[in-house]
Order: sequence, then C-alpha cells, then structure tokens
Amino acid sequence: MQAQSVPGLNLMPWPSNVQPASGALKIDSGFTVAFTGYKEGRLDRAGQRFLSVLQKQTGLLISNQPGDPGKAKLVVHTDHASKEIQEFGEDESYTLEVTSTGAKLDAASPLGVLRGLQTFLQLVDVSPDGFAAPAVMVKDSPRFGWRGLLIDSSRHFTPMDVLKRNLDGMEVVKMNVFHWHISDNQGFRAESKKLPKLHSLGSGGAYYSQAEIRDLISYARDRGIRVVPEFDMPGHSSSWFVGYPEVASTPGPFKIEETWGVMDPAMDPTNEKTYKFLDTFIGEMAKLFPDHYFHIGGDEVNGKAWDANPKIQEFKKAHNYKTNDELQTYFSQRVQKLVNKHGKATVGWDEIFVPGAPKDIVIHSWRGPKSLAAAAQQGYQGILSNGYYIDLMWSAARHYAVDPLSGDASSLTPDQQKLVLGGEATMWSEYVNWENIDNRIWPRTAAIAERYWSAQSVTDVNSMYARLEVISQRLEWVGLTHCSQPRKMLQRLAGPATPEEFAALKTLADVLEPVKNYTRGETAPYTAITTTPLNRVVDAVPPESDVARRFDDKVSAFLGGSCRDAVIAASLRVQLTKWRDNDAALQSLAAKSWFVKEVGPSSQDLSAVAGIGLAALDAIAKDTPLSDDSKTQAAAAIAAASKGKAQVLLIPAPTIQKLVDAAANGGACSAKP
Amino acid sequence: MQAQSVPGLNLMPWPSNVQPASGALKIDSGFTVAFTGYKEGRLDRAGQRFLSVLQKQTGLLISNQPGDPGKAKLVVHTDHASKEIQEFGEDESYTLEVTSTGAKLDAASPLGVLRGLQTFLQLVDVSPDGFAAPAVMVKDSPRFGWRGLLIDSSRHFTPMDVLKRNLDGMEVVKMNVFHWHISDNQGFRAESKKLPKLHSLGSGGAYYSQAEIRDLISYARDRGIRVVPEFDMPGHSSSWFVGYPEVASTPGPFKIEETWGVMDPAMDPTNEKTYKFLDTFIGEMAKLFPDHYFHIGGDEVNGKAWDANPKIQEFKKAHNYKTNDELQTYFSQRVQKLVNKHGKATVGWDEIFVPGAPKDIVIHSWRGPKSLAAAAQQGYQGILSNGYYIDLMWSAARHYAVDPLSGDASSLTPDQQKLVLGGEATMWSEYVNWENIDNRIWPRTAAIAERYWSAQSVTDVNSMYARLEVISQRLEWVGLTHCSQPRKMLQRLAGPATPEEFAALKTLADVLEPVKNYTRGETAPYTAITTTPLNRVVDAVPPESDVARRFDDKVSAFLGGSCRDAVIAASLRVQLTKWRDNDAALQSLAAKSWFVKEVGPSSQDLSAVAGIGLAALDAIAKDTPLSDDSKTQAAAAIAAASKGKAQVLLIPAPTIQKLVDAAANGGACSAKP
Repeated sequence: MQAQSVPGLNLMPWPSNVQPASGALKIDSGFTVAFTGYKEGRLDRAGQRFLSVLQKQTGLLISNQPGDPGKAKLVVHTDHASKEIQEFGEDESYTLEVTSTGAKLDAASPLGVLRGLQTFLQLVDVSPDGFAAPAVMVKDSPRFGWRGLLIDSSRHFTPMDVLKRNLDGMEVVKMNVFHWHISDNQGFRAESKKLPKLHSLGSGGAYYSQAEIRDLISYARDRGIRVVPEFDMPGHSSSWFVGYPEVASTPGPFKIEETWGVMDPAMDPTNEKTYKFLDTFIGEMAKLFPDHYFHIGGDEVNGKAWDANPKIQEFKKAHNYKTNDELQTYFSQRVQKLVNKHGKATVGWDEIFVPGAPKDIVIHSWRGPKSLAAAAQQGYQGILSNGYYIDLMWSAARHYAVDPLSGDASSLTPDQQKLVLGGEATMWSEYVNWENIDNRIWPRTAAIAERYWSAQSVTDVNSMYARLEVISQRLEWVGLTHCSQPRKMLQRLAGPATPEEFAALKTLADVLEPVKNYTRGETAPYTAITTTPLNRVVDAVPPESDVARRFDDKVSAFLGGSCRDAVIAASLRVQLTKWRDNDAALQSLAAKSWFVKEVGPSSQDLSAVAGIGLAALDAIAKDTPLSDDSKTQAAAAIAAASKGKAQVLLIPAPTIQKLVDAAANGGACSAKP
Repeated sequence: MQAQSVPGLNLMPWPSNVQPASGALKIDSGFTVAFTGYKEGRLDRAGQRFLSVLQKQTGLLISNQPGDPGKAKLVVHTDHASKEIQEFGEDESYTLEVTSTGAKLDAASPLGVLRGLQTFLQLVDVSPDGFAAPAVMVKDSPRFGWRGLLIDSSRHFTPMDVLKRNLDGMEVVKMNVFHWHISDNQGFRAESKKLPKLHSLGSGGAYYSQAEIRDLISYARDRGIRVVPEFDMPGHSSSWFVGYPEVASTPGPFKIEETWGVMDPAMDPTNEKTYKFLDTFIGEMAKLFPDHYFHIGGDEVNGKAWDANPKIQEFKKAHNYKTNDELQTYFSQRVQKLVNKHGKATVGWDEIFVPGAPKDIVIHSWRGPKSLAAAAQQGYQGILSNGYYIDLMWSAARHYAVDPLSGDASSLTPDQQKLVLGGEATMWSEYVNWENIDNRIWPRTAAIAERYWSAQSVTDVNSMYARLEVISQRLEWVGLTHCSQPRKMLQRLAGPATPEEFAALKTLADVLEPVKNYTRGETAPYTAITTTPLNRVVDAVPPESDVARRFDDKVSAFLGGSCRDAVIAASLRVQLTKWRDNDAALQSLAAKSWFVKEVGPSSQDLSAVAGIGLAALDAIAKDTPLSDDSKTQAAAAIAAASKGKAQVLLIPAPTIQKLVDAAANGGACSAKP
C-alpha cells in the first residue's frame, strides 16, 4: 500500500509492502522481546537499544531481560550472519507481522533485524487504550543499497557525541552509509601515526584519535552503517600542507584555512614524493577504516597552484598534457592504483570521471544527475548527492522530489540503472556546529532517506510531511536535539525577555528561514567561517518553517475552494491578525537585544504583509477587486519583504501575494463555481 | 542593595552586597580568564568549566587557553588552599568587581572562587551591543554554611548522569551539601564490599559501585559540594534485610518494598549482632565517604516489629524501657558511638533528638522549625528541611517564605542561632525518575538556595520570580532538562496530535499542577510506586504553573486598581477567551489518546471557569453586580473545578473566584476610588 492511503501509520521510510490488518498489539510494562535463530553480540545490543528507545518513547517500565520465545510479545528470528565487514548490497530485507496477540520479525541477517526493529518502534503510538502497535503485515527491502549521510567534520569539528547521536538518527530512518568528510582546507581531523604532523599541525588540536575513530566505526556497525572516509585530494588540502609543505605545488608557508570558498593550494602531482607520502598515508588509513570503499575527493581543483609552478608546467609539456584536467587525471589514476594496492575501491567526486578512468571506481555526483547517467552509460557505478545538499536550506519537499533515477537517469537500461548505487545527503559544515547541526540535518534527511529506501512511486508530499512531523519528534528520543536546541538558542539571543516579548520573537522566528543556497557565504559579514559565532537568529531557525508551510497549504486550500470556506477564512484571519499585531512586543525586545534588533526589519515586514493579507481577505469577502494601485503597492511591499535581511527570509510573504492576486483578479476567486 | 531595587541584575542567590556602577564589560570571542595566587587542579578545572558554560550561554567561540594576567578580561585571585576535605563553615566569601574594561574576582580560597565565577556567569547577558556584564561591585558571603539538596536514590534509582547534572545545578546556585539518601525500604543503592548482600540482594541490580561513588564525590568536591551519605536506620531498612535478615527484629523473609508509606521492618536494637554488623558497615562507609558527617536517618520507626518480638519485649523490661522511643534512643546512642569510633559526627532526623543525646549530633528537622529551636536552646546543632520538601509540589514562593531562623527560631539568642547550620531541600523520589526529577527540583530549589545564602531580609516574591525565570533558563545550559523534557513528555502522551490539538493540550497543561502534599500517594491507582509508569499528564506538568501565576498576578493588579485598567481587562479577556475556547481541540485529541482523555474533565472545567470569568468581567464592566444565583452557581462550578482530577489541579480556578467575588460585590470593585 502507498503511504498516502494509510494515514494512521507514521512509517518513514515507507516500506515496500504494507498490509494493514484489524486490531492492535497493546504495549505495556509486560512487553518482552526474544531472539531466535542466529545469535551475536550485535543482536543483543540491538535488543537492548530497542528496549531503551521503547521505554523512552512510551515512558513504560519495560524489563530489559531477554524474553522467552514462547511467550515474548515480539519474537525476532535471524537466519544467518551478515558479512564480517558490512558490504554494499547486503540483504537488508525483513518481514514484520503484528497481530493483536504478538509480533514476529524475520530477517535473513542482523541487518534486516535492525531495519525491522525500527519499523516496529515507529508503529508503536498512543491509542485510546494506552500504547499500541496496529496489526499489520510489512514486507520490506530497500530500493538502493547506498543510503548515505555525509558529515563534514573539517570546516567545523563535530564532537564524538554529536556524531553518535546522528548515527542513531540514521538508524531510525534505515540509512546505511556514514560518509565522513574528515579532511579539508579548514582542518585535518584524523590522527595519523605515520604522518603525525597531519593532525598535530593541521587540526588546531581538534581531531579524532584512532581509538575514537575505531569506536565510531564499531558504533556504526552496530547500527548497520558503513563508514566511508573521505580524504579530499589533490585540492581541498591546505591543512595537510601545514605539516607537510613538501607535497604541495607551491612553496608555502601554509595555514589552516578559516574562510569559505575554493582555495588555491593543491598537491604536486608531478613529484614522486607525493605518491610515496600518499602510499604511506593511504596504507595507514586503509587499515584504520575497514570499509571496502575509500573516497579520495578530487573536486574543485582550480589549477592556480599548478600554473604557478614552473616544474609542473615542464611536466605537463613533457607528458603532452594540454590542460590541468589531464594533469589531475594523471594524479587520480596514480592515487587509484595506491587505493587498489591497499585493498580498496576508489570513490571520488565527478571530477574523477574522465575518459579512460578504471571501471572499478564509483562516481559521486555533486554536479548533477546528468553526469551520473553519463557515467552509468559507460559502465561506471555512481552515487547522487546533487539535489541532496542539505546545507543549502531547501525544503524537505524539494529534496524529496529529486530521485537518483529521475532526469537523465530515467532513460537508462535496467542494467545501467543498477549502476546507480544510491545517494547521500551532504552536511557541509561552513555554518554548523555542535549546537545547530542536528536541526540542519533533521528532520529533512528523513525525507531523503525515504527517497533512497522506498519505491520511486512514493511521492505524495502531504503524506511525507504528515509522517515527517511524527518522525521528527521520535528522533529526539534517540538523543537528537533538532527540536529542543533551536528553542534554547532563541532564548539565549532573547536575553532578558518578558514572556510576551519571547512569545513575539517565537512567532516571528517560526516563519523565518535561513537564506538559501550559498547566499550567506557570499554576503556574510564575517569571512572567517571557522571563527564566526553561530548564535544569531539565522542560526537558531530551522531550514524549513512548519508554520509557514501550513499557512501556505491553508491558503492553497482556500483559493482552491474558490475562497468560499468560511472556516478556513476565519483561521487565516486569526493567523494574519496575530502576525500583524506582533511587532510591538518584538521591537520592545529589539531595544534590549542586539540579536533581536537584527530581525526588527523582518518583524516590520511581517506586520506589513499580514496587514496586506487581511485587506486581501476583506476584498475577497466583499467581492470587491483590489484597485490597480493597491495591487501594485501590495506587490511592491511583498517583494521587498521577500528579500533576505540579516540572512533570513520571511517565508509567508510570497504566500500572501497569492491572496493579493486572488483579490485583485476582479473576483476571479469568487467567480469560480 | 536589595534584589528588588536592581531589576537588571538577575542574580540568584542575591549577594550580601551589590553596588551597581556605570558601564558594562563587553563579552566577545576575545574574552579570557587568568588565575593568580594559589593554584590547584580544581581551579584549572573550574576555569575550563566556567569557559564552557560561558561559551554555551553566549554561543561565542571563546578560547579555553589560560589568559595572561596582565591582559585577561577576568582575573581571578585565590589566596590560599581550602581544607583537603571540605568542611562545614569554610570561608566561601568573594569579591567581584566588574568595570567596563575588565573584571577582578578575589577570594580567600577556591570555594569563594567557585561561588564568584557563578555570579559572573549570571551577570553576563544580552545587551543592545551583544553580550555584556554590567559594571558592578559585589561583596558576598553566605548566611548559612549548610545549604543542601537531598536526593532520594532509593525509591527510584537516580542514574549517575542525572546526579551529576543536578550537582551542576547546585553549583550554579551556590549550594554546598549533597545529601545522598542512598538506602531505604525500596532499595539499597551503595556497593558494600564487606557486606555485599546489601547491594546484591537489596537493590534489584540498580546500585552505585564504590568507584562510581568516589567519582561522584570528586565531581562534587570540584564544585565545592560536600557529599553527606544517609543510611537510614533502624527503620526504612527493608532492603537491608533481604540480604541480612539476621539483624531484623522479625524473622522475615523480606523483600525490596515496592509501595509507598511507612513500613514495619526495623533492625533489632537488642541483638549484639546488629551492632557488630553496623560496626563493619559504618567502618566501610566512613572510609568511602570522606565527609565529617554521617547521616543515620532514624525517622519513622512505627515499633510494630519490636512489639512483635518477645525477646525485644524482654529486653525492654530488663532495661526498664517503657516505650519504643526509649528503645530507639538506646539504639541511636549505640550507633552514634560507632559513628564516632570511625571518626565521624552523626546527623539524624528529629527522632534522634531525645533527652540525654550526646551534644555532637546534628538534628535534621523534618517535623518542623519548633524542634530545631528547641534543640538549639539545648545546645544542639540543627538543619531545617521542614518547609523545603520539594516533593510536596508547593510553589517556590511558599518554600521561599520559610526561613531556618523564623518562627520559634527567631527568638533564639545569637549564639543559639549559630547552632542552626542551614537547611536542605528534599527530593523524595516516590514519583520521580530520570525524566522528571529535574523539573521537580528546578527551578524551585534555586529560590530555596537563595533563602539559605542571602540575607533574611531578601524576601520580595516578585523579584524572586523575575530572577527565577531567568535562572531557570540558565540552568538548562549546564545540562538540566527541567524546561525541555516536560515538553517532550507532553508530546509523547499526545501521540499523533495535529498541531492545533497539541497546542490545546499545551494550553491546558500550562495551567495544571500535580496535586499537593501526599495526595497522590494516598489516592494513587497504583500502590507499587517503584513500578508505576511516570508518563501521565501529572508527571509531565511542572510543580508550579508560570502561566497561572502570571494570570493571578494580573487579576490582583486589576482588582487592586479598582478594575479600571482597560489594558489589563483586555488582556484578561484574551486569556480567558483562549481558555474558554480550548476544549474542542483538546477533546478531539482525548478521543485518540488515553493520557489526554484522563484530563478531559479538567479541560471542560477550564472552559467552564473561563466562561464564568468572562461573565464576571462583563458584570464589572457594566457595573451590574452578579445576582446571588449567578454567584452561587459560579462558586459551585469553581469549587468543583478546583478539586484534583487525574492527580492534577486546575490552578486558575481559585483566581477566577476572585473576579466573581469582585463582580458580585455590588460594584465594590468600581466603588473604590
């Protein structure tokens, strides 16, 4: 069944097959779970974790003693072991049957058990009789085998506990690849014992010890998640050169970068020292990270460092390389051989997809689905991240609409489509730290996770948002802070606000979103991203405003219903009146707080556009079209209010334009039947 | 200066002497702190902790490298060490001077530094220019040397991380004694290596290892907090007897108790085995807990176990003891000698204050200030907890009004008053667990901490609440969850609520409080407190409703102003209208959630009394007294609504009666000038 046809089940990602049945399994303190079949420590720990989350999400005192298979409410059967090192494409399928007397979860391997336990947890909800899981038959398996989240721990260091809670979140939505972007210009974050100046001089002290890395990998494995490290080269590597300038193309000296953007420094692809260095380095890291895949980055080399080095120019001439791209191809192929030598397969960004590249590499597309399709047509495996850049502050719906097999990829043959392994949401960290990273990643990434797991036909946006709101709350039970921390951040910047003033700030903040795409980096007052405090309103508001989205839905329903629904009209009036009258208390707080003052103009805008919206509703109610003058003035005010100020956008403004259009349309609204 | 006269300073507890100056010290990323004078590891850690909290409460990227004393914005000078084992009455004084160019904190010992650093953190707030600390001169020292919080880890086990974050909260408000009620009928929670059946059979597996206890003591010491253990005897000791029935008065068998109330089992005071056992036990625990004081409980022995044992009856006759109290005195004195033998001084509840008790004991009063005064008159030291029982769900104002030196104690001579060492808030844990303990303790305990630290004349309740609201938010920055977790608990019990339904539940919950005193235990549907789920509305709502308190303040202002203030009247109308119209969405949610259904009647009550309040406002506005009939009906409805339902109270109901009284009073309200 499709998600949209089963409103009561808040499952995300939506399973391949769901058959609701009648009745429900009551969940009380007597609930027990038993494991049969293949056993291993990871399953015991999964059972404990499952019970711990169930206790939290119900508040029930459920024993964490293993149950008796003959009596347990949930019996989990595992057929056999999974691979010792988790591999791409392993079986993650499971079946879960819930009846009013008990539940059965069956899976081929522990990976399917992990997925099925999360489905069970999502089924449990409050009912008129307490907690219950509705009777249902689920048969489930993923569409794509590579369902990833990239976290950039270079631009801002990500503390271990933050990484772990995000792995917990990934487990909830059945993601299976943690792509760890662990080095970049702004910091080299992995301890190297063989080349210790990498972390000691390249990290400013903020790096992961090898013990911590091993701990994280085992934490991820427990959750059915592979860890793919990325060491970006030959560009994005300033931090490497602080300790090892001898492998750079220019003499240096180098420093850990603090700003945003593409940097010039790059490794010297013509120097044999570079390959000796990388042989040592890749050899060490290939042992530390057990996954079969090793990501070498390869993106955004601007070539300036190569152009500036006469020896490199000579090398190009000698090898008859016309372009720096050709030179990078030479570098990539040398590095790919090293990766192979140490037993791994290479993943790299679009840039490594060049004529003659070896067929065992995986193309990670940041540029677009086109290159992914082109690669597949030539027999290359690929992963899509273009469209899943969660740092760009797009809506969940916009990411949800991107499919790894849409666009150019939709015309691939079935065999070529198999080369598209999946996708990865990417959390680039220019403007995220321990405090707001959760709300940048969640809940939107849950919608992306559904895109990777569920059938291509699961596309109903209303159903997605309805389920996303529930899953979002659930994600806080595993320790994520995407709902609770933004409120604390608002309280902090509000300082000594009265309750009324804070309520006004909350009302305003609830309809603001950070500016989109790279606007902030391009227009930021601070250029040094790594030392910019992230304590402003733009940092505290989530990427997507639920209040504004619901308002837009309501306006659409109103206009779609020919503006005749009195209940909706009244509800729009209540909302618009609240917004119109919100500014006084907000400005009173703005006089006390620098941070609130910054959004004072947005508050005035909200007040103004809400007034315009009310006037439009009046015009519609009276069946009197707005005058051309009023329409023009309103459009100008709305356009001005729609512009980013203090790096935030006032989201309801364009929605209110829809009301104005309807009001101006000579009664077009009421003319409809 | 008094708290009430410096509205901009949100300090709690209010210092002994505060002199505001002009200007402010700007706090930005360049802030540094340097330590001069006496040095120790504890000060380094205090500095790191201070910077970590400052970073969180500002969101600034402040370096945690030690500053240069010549340039640091805050220079901390420590004169000398404090005692190796923190003692009662040690010097905790400090002076803190903040000017627009820098700040200086001076203290005799690290204890004063710890207190002064918290004052500095409280001074830092948002200003029109960003973060700043106002210029001020503070000279501060505590009124009482014993400022405690008791946590009962027996009825519900308190996880280590929960204890630690509560010690962090204690540090914020300058409390210095953690009274660890670590054994009781419902669980023996401390590992004993010499008598291992105590924890292995008496805890159900939930106990603290000695390593954990040592870790907690050192965590507390870092924060200037003593840890006083309480091993309650000869009653409150069922859990001891599970492993060691031979020291009980009755043959057993015994089990870990699960219910609420006073239990019969008691140690056998007539058996020499008991004293041998206690000698071993106290000897071991006296080494584990370094504090000079050792709390032996001694409360609530009902004597039934003694009456039931013929040997004990013979012993009483032989010793000419007429009452069980005399027998307990014999026991207490034997135990006090053991405590002394192992180098400690005894603390015990009121019951140990008997004629002839040795003078070195400390009387801990749960019964009332009267016994404390009586004890002081006879030369005994005492601590007050009566009036500070935070499990009784009283308002902060009610606790705040209790002073260890008020009532009978106010007539003590100055020397006798010195025998009153201070007080302790007591968090008995019948109905608290990891999830709601923070909101049971905080923020109310901050007001109690002020009572213990600040001058007796600091009593302005409005000032207290204004500062408490700010401090309450600050307490979340050290990891407490008293603000954030109740919201999650509400979300959990609301299940699949729509945003409107959840808003309705929030509106209702915001004016509910748990029933007071021992009502819940006396009327609970569950008798087994240790296995009762704490996931209902009564568990999620804080002990004190801020919304209801502000409403009551507003009604008082309105009535005090002769009901003429149109702005207040309009604001009351908005509030009452919101309450009156809240029930529909609430009932729609109640149909889906068992937990919400339980408070459905309270929602109907809120709707009804809000309607009555609006009618009263109408009558006042029209200057038409309510008819006797209307008045009677209103009073009956309000009385019905004021009764606890589902273990919660509807707090605005009595406030609305005030409006009705005014409306009924033949225009008494408007008759006033």
